[in-house]
Amino acid sequence: MKKHNFSAGPAILPQSVMQEASQACLDFNGMGMSILEISHRSKEFDAVALEAEALVREIGGFDDRFAVLFLSGGASTQFAMAPMNLLKEGEKTAYVDTGTWASKAFKEAKHFGSPEVLASSKEANYNFIPKDYTVPADAAYLHLTSNNTIFGTQLQQFPTSPVPIVCDMSSDMFSRPFDVEQFGLIYAGAQKNIGPAGVTLVIVRKDLLGRSGRKLPSMMDYQIHADNGSMFNTPPVFPLYVLMLTLRWLKANGGLSAIQQKNEAKAAILYNEIDDNPLFKGTVAVEDRSRMNVCFLPVNPDHEAPFMAAAKAAGIDGIKGHRSVGGFRASIYNAMPQESVQVLVDVMREFAKQNG
Amino acid sequence: MKKHNFSAGPAILPQSVMQEASQACLDFNGMGMSILEISHRSKEFDAVALEAEALVREIGGFDDRFAVLFLSGGASTQFAMAPMNLLKEGEKTAYVDTGTWASKAFKEAKHFGSPEVLASSKEANYNFIPKDYTVPADAAYLHLTSNNTIFGTQLQQFPTSPVPIVCDMSSDMFSRPFDVEQFGLIYAGAQKNIGPAGVTLVIVRKDLLGRSGRKLPSMMDYQIHADNGSMFNTPPVFPLYVLMLTLRWLKANGGLSAIQQKNEAKAAILYNEIDDNPLFKGTVAVEDRSRMNVCFLPVNPDHEAPFMAAAKAAGIDGIKGHRSVGGFRASIYNAMPQESVQVLVDVMREFAKQNG
Repeated sequence: MKKHNFSAGPAILPQSVMQEASQACLDFNGMGMSILEISHRSKEFDAVALEAEALVREIGGFDDRFAVLFLSGGASTQFAMAPMNLLKEGEKTAYVDTGTWASKAFKEAKHFGSPEVLASSKEANYNFIPKDYTVPADAAYLHLTSNNTIFGTQLQQFPTSPVPIVCDMSSDMFSRPFDVEQFGLIYAGAQKNIGPAGVTLVIVRKDLLGRSGRKLPSMMDYQIHADNGSMFNTPPVFPLYVLMLTLRWLKANGGLSAIQQKNEAKAAILYNEIDDNPLFKGTVAVEDRSRMNVCFLPVNPDHEAPFMAAAKAAGIDGIKGHRSVGGFRASIYNAMPQESVQVLVDVMREFAKQNG
Repeated sequence: MKKHNFSAGPAILPQSVMQEASQACLDFNGMGMSILEISHRSKEFDAVALEAEALVREIGGFDDRFAVLFLSGGASTQFAMAPMNLLKEGEKTAYVDTGTWASKAFKEAKHFGSPEVLASSKEANYNFIPKDYTVPADAAYLHLTSNNTIFGTQLQQFPTSPVPIVCDMSSDMFSRPFDVEQFGLIYAGAQKNIGPAGVTLVIVRKDLLGRSGRKLPSMMDYQIHADNGSMFNTPPVFPLYVLMLTLRWLKANGGLSAIQQKNEAKAAILYNEIDDNPLFKGTVAVEDRSRMNVCFLPVNPDHEAPFMAAAKAAGIDGIKGHRSVGGFRASIYNAMPQESVQVLVDVMREFAKQNG
């Protein structure tokens, strides 16, 4: 039985993408070779990398002011690379602490300058997004985490900022439209909305390259990757290929406006059930609820194990909540079909009938 | 028609591995989910990572004194991570310059200490491996590149060294037995002998961890990856899975001694033809010839294009030499069947008959 995969990441990808990826492992593009064994310098793979970049630009609306890079090492590497490249020694910069990953990003920045936490919801176990802060005009940048995978909160609106926004969009990248003008740097590990684990999308405003003035190891230097079209070294060929397929699927399905509608519809079905069902409750401020990671608790803690069993029996996988929150977390990224969300809602209803 | 893939890397993998990888993209381990969508924290993937580590230890003979890490960013990232972790500020260390990649490794080390080049064959376009040098006893380590992919030379014997050897084995990792006692650090991008692009194997002696005393960004710190079983962040799930499959294949085929025999037999067939065939000549010192990358030139430069066409007609792919050497390069890594090498030799013979 095919599972309903609610994993927080690596996460569900479109079925068609996984089928194409499977076929390419046997024979890519009729080359008589597998995607796993071809040179990254072959014209066939070059076409993949160019199409991936073109799709990022078209879907996101990134013009030539931005460099589009495909790197590896995930967002965790970007936590260090962002300040290494953009933050001068001793210079001030501003972080908003909205969860575990935001906090890790801040920690890494301390190696490279003087970051400060403008606002934090840590004391409330990150159950809301702080909005009441002023961004210092002399900060190098404002660092935000657009969606907090663990806690299930999401920035519904980006703040206006006098300095460029650096944003970790790992868990809601390309799940909705956004205005590129506010951003100096966007990074996203692919493994939630845009591909499999092993490739990281980085979009950086070219005029910020080299801003820190640091002499960096080559692999840490955005400028070197930009100068080499992300082929300074061997890129993660297969993950990048699957990212490209995922973006093709996104474009074919109408791009960001269309996926936003679908994502909001899916989230509404699930949050409505959480609010209506007497056996469950949400965990975060309603206005900050994530459309990607829906966290909820059983009102009665004794219901946790039996509900998990009922979900499992319905083919639902990956809804165990992170230990920081407990309960359940349903991750409903771009590729999650509404039908699977409905299966989860049906299990919740049936569970309430039998246990209410 | 299935091609004979002589690409220098990413490179041929065992057919059975590519078939298993293809199947896992549809349904991994009967989970009802693709390997591309499962959590790296699932027990099924945990088993993959543990088996990969166990296979590295068993095949290579690495006991508990060594940490076995699966990272990303390729050897190019290790060029910086090795000195970052092992070399103190201002401390001396020694590099042997045997090719483009060795030279790049040296360049990155200059960010972190005082590396010196002990010996270089650059003036001879790297057509031999320098052996006449003394390793300073006060160097932090001796850096070697065991196989030079571009130029087709290979260290047939590791020098004795008073300090730990740090070795880039990217292009001959697990192609032959070696004595682990000499090594402080071994690193290898997977995409030649041990897997697809996107995962990097790092084996480091635990007593050297933290040697540099530097406060490092987390993702650059071997200690952090060792403490977290290579799961400090989301690992490159699929590339690591395929690496594990490739090591399973290697073990099932007899491990390092058996693969060494096969690799030497394949190389002998091809070098014998190069030496016997009046239309071709080798490019490097005979005693330093690589068993992995066999470089050769047409005696008559006008034969380059027609020989390439003849090879292509026989289904041979990827033998164009690197621009630094010209001519041809046949990469015959672990997974290359002897039959494909024979096809290339047959084309060389037939070409000599018709053009000799």
